[in-house]
Amino acid sequence: MGIIAAIDLGGTAIKGALFDGTGPLTKKNHPTEAKKGYGHVLQNIDQLIQRMADNKGIKVDEIRSVGVGVPAFMAEQGRRVVLAPNLGWSDVDFASDLAEQMQKPVFCNNDANLAALGEHWQGNGKDIENLLMVTIGTGIGSGLILNGELYQGKSGMAVEVGHMVIMAEGSHRCSCGRQGCVEALTAAPAIVREAKKLMDVPTDCLPDVNITEAKQVYQAAASGDKRALQVVEKAAYFLGVALANILNFYELDVIIIGGGVAQAGDILLNPLRRTVARETVFFQRRPTEILPGMLGNDAGVFGAARWAALGEAKKRG
Amino acid sequence: MGIIAAIDLGGTAIKGALFDGTGPLTKKNHPTEAKKGYGHVLQNIDQLIQRMADNKGIKVDEIRSVGVGVPAFMAEQGRRVVLAPNLGWSDVDFASDLAEQMQKPVFCNNDANLAALGEHWQGNGKDIENLLMVTIGTGIGSGLILNGELYQGKSGMAVEVGHMVIMAEGSHRCSCGRQGCVEALTAAPAIVREAKKLMDVPTDCLPDVNITEAKQVYQAAASGDKRALQVVEKAAYFLGVALANILNFYELDVIIIGGGVAQAGDILLNPLRRTVARETVFFQRRPTEILPGMLGNDAGVFGAARWAALGEAKKRG
Repeated sequence: MGIIAAIDLGGTAIKGALFDGTGPLTKKNHPTEAKKGYGHVLQNIDQLIQRMADNKGIKVDEIRSVGVGVPAFMAEQGRRVVLAPNLGWSDVDFASDLAEQMQKPVFCNNDANLAALGEHWQGNGKDIENLLMVTIGTGIGSGLILNGELYQGKSGMAVEVGHMVIMAEGSHRCSCGRQGCVEALTAAPAIVREAKKLMDVPTDCLPDVNITEAKQVYQAAASGDKRALQVVEKAAYFLGVALANILNFYELDVIIIGGGVAQAGDILLNPLRRTVARETVFFQRRPTEILPGMLGNDAGVFGAARWAALGEAKKRG
Repeated sequence: MGIIAAIDLGGTAIKGALFDGTGPLTKKNHPTEAKKGYGHVLQNIDQLIQRMADNKGIKVDEIRSVGVGVPAFMAEQGRRVVLAPNLGWSDVDFASDLAEQMQKPVFCNNDANLAALGEHWQGNGKDIENLLMVTIGTGIGSGLILNGELYQGKSGMAVEVGHMVIMAEGSHRCSCGRQGCVEALTAAPAIVREAKKLMDVPTDCLPDVNITEAKQVYQAAASGDKRALQVVEKAAYFLGVALANILNFYELDVIIIGGGVAQAGDILLNPLRRTVARETVFFQRRPTEILPGMLGNDAGVFGAARWAALGEAKKRG
């Protein structure tokens, strides 16, 4: 596939990698600096690619195309950013603008879609025909591979598992405006919120009760704190209900859990597996494996590289 | 397509019609008599087809094939009945058994799938590429047409909108075993249950407060009873949340509401449209029309005829 620059654009950092046909040649990061404006972010991406090329003694001209995962609702098969709350962008022709900046073909898509594609290409979704990847961090992202291909719907909007309502009339308002979305019940801020309610008394396992990060709750659960375990199991229950709802619509071979919260591992995954098994018992024909991501934080750049390679191949026809 | 016998198999009645290429030639019903056993139901279907043929002066030999909608969870693209609670059947090779009884090709599918196919062929879904049909009665059935074709998933299990959980930890246990399914919140028994709670005082509009049927509640709502209206609007809200969840996954041109409860018309459909519009505002690219079914109770036989015609065409290759 020649050399491809793969970018995973985040709210605070831009992750980059150069790929040849076999895998990543080099990886580097650069601050996003979204507050300095849209044009500045484009320049930062340009600079990061330049630095990676310099680092490997490659001329930027040798880079055939650029793949970018964007934390955004996107339309037109990833060409258009409808809304990127963490970047402060709405309705921009990001792919065209970056292509002009770089003087190269640019292939963009939603970051969670590309994480799914990355795990499908080189991770725990390898050779799997039907898989869903759910990335859990501050928000919840998701990407769906159906029959071996990224599924995007007619207009190319991502499948947003995080904004499935599973608690109608639930009191928790989601960032999207709906009430009772999975994201508002399961993502990191929900873990912190629920933990604060329960874990207000110091214990041996958790002497510091100033909970500010979901990671603290997962660690406390792993070391046996029953209240933390209760919080984690509740989050797993809500996520499990949502995944069971999805398995009612799509028959999936594998569900991959990625993102920050997923590093909690079996403390989260085991109750999640139990809920999914229980909630699908009446309609599921065969079990769906629930696995952690294999590529960790690199799933996005792997997916971006793959998306650019697929985009090039499609262009060649 | 020659002459096709179309059957809509229900818990109490078997609806039948004979179709030629242009539409139904004749329609007749026969009691299901499910309690008399599986073989007896097969014979009743046979008899009904015989009676319809006699009625039109057609020899049964002239009927090329039989299409049947079954109120069941089905597998293997509709060949196998996994579970049909209203008939008391589980794990039967219904299509093969009926084919042997009739000495003709038999093409079966879930009844709601075939209602969707019927509306797509000759009803309010005509020329629509992507549509969902939801039939609301004692239970909730659903059928999905994607890119002009019935979508069944890999193993052929129906997409069961009714068993999407939208009220996790909700107190209402569904017949399927899950808690907080749309069906447990929106179908006819839920309407009656909620109405009984609110409407225990006689009023001018509703002197008889012995509510036994959802129809009474819809009629009371239509004549201005505020409590009945509240019950209907709540049901519409729950159904709307579920439909919005689905529109997050599939981009649909039209959603068709059919079945007994749907006869309530705009009293149900208007609040439903409002909820769907509100709950999809952040991700929907274009509006989805919500329409009542056009074929009423005949959607099932229309779909059964169409399914048999498609099955024959596929066999011919």
